[in-house]
Amino acid sequence: MFDPTSLKYDAKGLIPAIAQSPEGEVLMMAWMNIEAVKRTLQSGQVTYWSRSRQDFWIKGETSGHLQKLIEMRVDCDRDCLLMIVDQTGPACHTNRRSCFYTALRDGEEVEIMAPMTDA
Amino acid sequence: MFDPTSLKYDAKGLIPAIAQSPEGEVLMMAWMNIEAVKRTLQSGQVTYWSRSRQDFWIKGETSGHLQKLIEMRVDCDRDCLLMIVDQTGPACHTNRRSCFYTALRDGEEVEIMAPMTDA
Repeated sequence: MFDPTSLKYDAKGLIPAIAQSPEGEVLMMAWMNIEAVKRTLQSGQVTYWSRSRQDFWIKGETSGHLQKLIEMRVDCDRDCLLMIVDQTGPACHTNRRSCFYTALRDGEEVEIMAPMTDA
Repeated sequence: MFDPTSLKYDAKGLIPAIAQSPEGEVLMMAWMNIEAVKRTLQSGQVTYWSRSRQDFWIKGETSGHLQKLIEMRVDCDRDCLLMIVDQTGPACHTNRRSCFYTALRDGEEVEIMAPMTDA
Protein backbone atom coordinates (compact mmCIF):
# COMPACT_ATOMS: atom_id res chain seq x y z
CA MET A 1 0.00 0.00 0.00
CA PHE A 2 1.13 3.55 -0.66
CA ASP A 3 2.14 5.40 2.49
CA PRO A 4 2.18 9.23 2.26
CA THR A 5 4.78 9.34 5.04
CA SER A 6 7.17 7.54 2.69
CA LEU A 7 7.48 10.67 0.52
CA LYS A 8 10.32 13.11 1.14
CA TYR A 9 9.09 16.50 2.26
CA ASP A 10 11.33 19.56 2.54
CA ALA A 11 12.24 21.41 5.72
CA LYS A 12 8.83 23.09 5.64
CA GLY A 13 7.07 19.75 5.24
CA LEU A 14 6.24 20.38 1.57
CA ILE A 15 6.62 18.45 -1.68
CA PRO A 16 6.29 19.96 -5.18
CA ALA A 17 3.35 18.65 -7.21
CA ILE A 18 3.12 19.08 -10.99
CA ALA A 19 -0.31 18.97 -12.65
CA GLN A 20 -0.53 17.74 -16.23
CA SER A 21 -3.50 17.17 -18.51
CA PRO A 22 -4.04 13.73 -20.09
CA GLU A 23 -3.08 15.37 -23.39
CA GLY A 24 0.37 16.17 -21.99
CA GLU A 25 0.10 19.86 -21.21
CA VAL A 26 1.89 20.88 -18.01
CA LEU A 27 -0.68 23.09 -16.31
CA MET A 28 0.95 24.25 -13.07
CA MET A 29 3.23 23.40 -10.18
CA ALA A 30 2.29 23.97 -6.57
CA TRP A 31 3.02 22.45 -3.18
CA MET A 32 1.48 19.85 -0.90
CA ASN A 33 2.05 18.83 2.68
CA ILE A 34 1.33 15.30 3.84
CA GLU A 35 -2.27 16.14 4.71
CA ALA A 36 -2.83 17.68 1.26
CA VAL A 37 -1.50 14.49 -0.33
CA LYS A 38 -3.93 12.45 1.76
CA ARG A 39 -6.89 14.72 1.03
CA THR A 40 -6.13 14.70 -2.70
CA LEU A 41 -6.02 10.91 -2.80
CA GLN A 42 -9.11 10.50 -0.62
CA SER A 43 -11.29 13.13 -2.28
CA GLY A 44 -10.02 12.97 -5.86
CA GLN A 45 -10.04 16.79 -5.83
CA VAL A 46 -6.49 18.13 -6.07
CA THR A 47 -5.72 19.94 -2.83
CA TYR A 48 -2.53 21.95 -2.42
CA TRP A 49 -1.01 23.78 0.52
CA SER A 50 -1.00 27.51 -0.07
CA ARG A 51 2.31 28.89 1.16
CA SER A 52 1.03 32.47 1.01
CA ARG A 53 -2.21 31.78 2.88
CA GLN A 54 -0.75 28.95 5.00
CA ASP A 55 -3.91 26.97 4.44
CA PHE A 56 -5.27 24.13 2.34
CA TRP A 57 -6.21 25.11 -1.17
CA ILE A 58 -8.77 22.95 -2.93
CA LYS A 59 -7.94 23.91 -6.48
CA GLY A 60 -10.91 25.61 -8.10
CA GLU A 61 -13.02 25.72 -4.93
CA THR A 62 -13.72 29.42 -5.40
CA SER A 63 -13.15 29.76 -9.17
CA GLY A 64 -14.89 26.56 -10.19
CA HIS A 65 -11.77 25.56 -12.12
CA LEU A 66 -11.45 22.25 -10.30
CA GLN A 67 -8.75 19.68 -10.83
CA LYS A 68 -9.99 16.14 -10.65
CA LEU A 69 -7.23 13.65 -10.00
CA ILE A 70 -6.85 10.95 -12.61
CA GLU A 71 -3.56 9.50 -11.38
CA MET A 72 -0.79 10.47 -8.98
CA ARG A 73 2.80 9.47 -9.75
CA VAL A 74 5.90 9.60 -7.56
CA ASP A 75 9.41 10.25 -8.84
CA CYS A 76 12.48 8.09 -8.26
CA ASP A 77 13.68 10.20 -5.34
CA ARG A 78 10.18 10.33 -3.84
CA ASP A 79 10.52 14.11 -3.51
CA CYS A 80 8.26 15.25 -6.38
CA LEU A 81 4.75 14.35 -7.50
CA LEU A 82 3.24 14.31 -10.97
CA MET A 83 -0.52 14.34 -11.19
CA ILE A 84 -2.53 13.61 -14.29
CA VAL A 85 -5.64 15.72 -13.85
CA ASP A 86 -8.93 16.52 -15.48
CA GLN A 87 -8.75 20.34 -15.39
CA THR A 88 -11.99 22.27 -15.69
CA GLY A 89 -11.21 25.42 -17.68
CA PRO A 90 -8.03 27.37 -17.00
CA ALA A 91 -5.52 26.16 -14.42
CA CYS A 92 -3.94 29.62 -14.11
CA HIS A 93 -5.35 32.50 -12.09
CA THR A 94 -4.75 34.67 -15.19
CA ASN A 95 -7.43 32.57 -16.90
CA ARG A 96 -4.92 30.85 -19.13
CA ARG A 97 -5.08 27.10 -19.58
CA SER A 98 -1.53 26.72 -18.18
CA CYS A 99 0.60 28.86 -15.88
CA PHE A 100 3.54 28.35 -18.26
CA TYR A 101 2.39 30.82 -20.92
CA THR A 102 5.61 32.80 -21.17
CA ALA A 103 8.34 31.40 -23.41
CA LEU A 104 11.88 32.67 -23.85
CA ARG A 105 12.62 33.05 -27.53
CA ASP A 106 15.70 34.79 -28.89
CA GLY A 107 16.29 36.25 -25.45
CA GLU A 108 12.84 37.82 -25.25
CA GLU A 109 9.78 36.89 -23.22
CA VAL A 110 6.97 35.87 -25.55
CA GLU A 111 3.39 35.19 -24.49
CA ILE A 112 2.39 31.94 -26.18
CA MET A 113 -1.09 31.49 -24.73
CA ALA A 114 -4.08 33.82 -24.48
CA PRO A 115 -6.57 33.86 -21.60
CA MET A 116 -9.51 31.53 -22.12
CA THR A 117 -12.96 32.94 -22.68
CA ASP A 118 -16.08 31.59 -21.04
CA ALA A 119 -17.86 31.49 -24.37
CA MET B 1 15.02 41.05 -22.86
CA PHE B 2 14.71 38.23 -20.36
CA ASP B 3 16.54 38.90 -17.11
CA PRO B 4 17.35 35.83 -14.94
CA THR B 5 17.35 38.04 -11.84
CA SER B 6 13.63 38.67 -12.47
CA LEU B 7 12.82 35.07 -11.46
CA LYS B 8 11.84 34.28 -7.89
CA TYR B 9 14.32 32.02 -6.17
CA ASP B 10 13.70 30.40 -2.79
CA ALA B 11 15.62 31.08 0.43
CA LYS B 12 18.42 28.86 -0.86
CA GLY B 13 18.54 30.74 -4.17
CA LEU B 14 16.90 27.89 -6.09
CA ILE B 15 14.00 27.58 -8.53
CA PRO B 16 12.33 24.30 -9.56
CA ALA B 17 12.75 23.34 -13.22
CA ILE B 18 10.57 20.74 -14.93
CA ALA B 19 11.88 18.97 -18.03
CA GLN B 20 9.38 17.77 -20.62
CA SER B 21 9.84 16.11 -23.99
CA PRO B 22 8.31 17.70 -27.11
CA GLU B 23 5.87 14.76 -27.12
CA GLY B 24 4.57 15.86 -23.72
CA GLU B 25 6.22 13.39 -21.36
CA VAL B 26 7.31 14.94 -18.07
CA LEU B 27 10.82 13.56 -17.63
CA MET B 28 12.08 14.98 -14.32
CA MET B 29 12.12 17.91 -11.95
CA ALA B 30 15.30 19.35 -10.50
CA TRP B 31 16.61 22.68 -9.27
CA MET B 32 18.52 25.63 -10.70
CA ASN B 33 20.20 28.64 -9.20
CA ILE B 34 20.56 31.85 -11.17
CA GLU B 35 23.89 30.80 -12.64
CA ALA B 36 22.45 27.44 -13.76
CA VAL B 37 19.63 29.31 -15.52
CA LYS B 38 22.19 31.48 -17.29
CA ARG B 39 24.40 28.54 -18.26
CA THR B 40 21.43 26.56 -19.56
CA LEU B 41 20.30 29.44 -21.75
CA GLN B 42 23.81 30.23 -22.97
CA SER B 43 24.97 26.69 -23.65
CA GLY B 44 21.68 25.04 -24.64
CA GLN B 45 22.68 22.12 -22.40
CA VAL B 46 20.36 21.87 -19.41
CA THR B 47 22.40 22.56 -16.28
CA TYR B 48 20.93 22.07 -12.83
CA TRP B 49 22.24 22.80 -9.36
CA SER B 50 22.82 19.58 -7.44
CA ARG B 51 21.64 20.10 -3.88
CA SER B 52 23.37 16.92 -2.69
CA ARG B 53 26.71 17.71 -4.32
CA GLN B 54 26.35 21.52 -4.02
CA ASP B 55 27.70 21.90 -7.51
CA PHE B 56 26.55 22.49 -11.07
CA TRP B 57 25.18 19.44 -12.81
CA ILE B 58 25.28 19.41 -16.57
CA LYS B 59 22.60 16.81 -17.17
CA GLY B 60 24.12 13.78 -18.91
CA GLU B 61 27.70 15.01 -18.70
CA THR B 62 28.86 11.73 -17.21
CA SER B 63 26.07 9.40 -18.44
CA GLY B 64 25.82 10.81 -21.96
CA HIS B 65 22.08 11.25 -21.43
CA LEU B 66 22.18 14.94 -22.28
CA GLN B 67 19.25 17.32 -22.25
CA LYS B 68 19.34 19.82 -25.07
CA LEU B 69 17.17 22.82 -24.39
CA ILE B 70 14.49 23.48 -26.98
CA GLU B 71 12.57 26.15 -25.09
CA MET B 72 12.43 27.52 -21.55
CA ARG B 73 9.12 28.78 -20.16
CA VAL B 74 8.38 30.76 -17.00
CA ASP B 75 5.22 30.41 -14.95
CA CYS B 76 2.85 33.20 -13.94
CA ASP B 77 4.46 33.61 -10.51
CA ARG B 78 7.96 33.47 -11.99
CA ASP B 79 8.90 30.86 -9.40
CA CYS B 80 8.92 27.74 -11.60
CA LEU B 81 10.46 26.85 -14.96
CA LEU B 82 9.25 24.44 -17.62
CA MET B 83 11.80 23.31 -20.17
CA ILE B 84 11.00 21.56 -23.41
CA VAL B 85 14.05 19.39 -24.00
CA ASP B 86 15.53 16.98 -26.46
CA GLN B 87 16.45 14.15 -24.09
CA THR B 88 19.06 11.65 -25.21
CA GLY B 89 18.02 8.25 -23.81
CA PRO B 90 16.70 7.98 -20.27
CA ALA B 91 16.29 11.07 -18.09
CA CYS B 92 16.26 9.00 -14.89
CA HIS B 93 19.33 7.60 -13.16
CA THR B 94 17.45 4.29 -12.98
CA ASN B 95 17.68 4.19 -16.78
CA ARG B 96 14.01 4.85 -17.23
CA ARG B 97 12.84 7.44 -19.72
CA SER B 98 11.14 9.47 -16.96
CA CYS B 99 11.68 9.71 -13.21
CA PHE B 100 7.90 9.46 -12.72
CA TYR B 101 7.63 5.73 -13.32
CA THR B 102 5.68 4.88 -10.16
CA ALA B 103 1.91 5.36 -10.27
CA LEU B 104 -0.56 5.03 -7.42
CA ARG B 105 -3.41 2.78 -8.49
CA ASP B 106 -6.03 1.45 -6.09
CA GLY B 107 -3.82 2.49 -3.21
CA GLU B 108 -0.83 0.51 -4.45
CA GLU B 109 2.44 1.62 -6.03
CA VAL B 110 2.65 0.31 -9.58
CA GLU B 111 5.71 0.53 -11.82
CA ILE B 112 4.47 1.78 -15.18
CA MET B 113 7.76 2.09 -17.03
CA ALA B 114 10.67 -0.32 -17.50
CA PRO B 115 14.33 0.68 -17.72
CA MET B 116 15.49 1.45 -21.25
CA THR B 117 17.93 -0.89 -22.95
CA ASP B 118 20.87 0.32 -25.00
CA ALA B 119 19.96 -2.06 -27.79
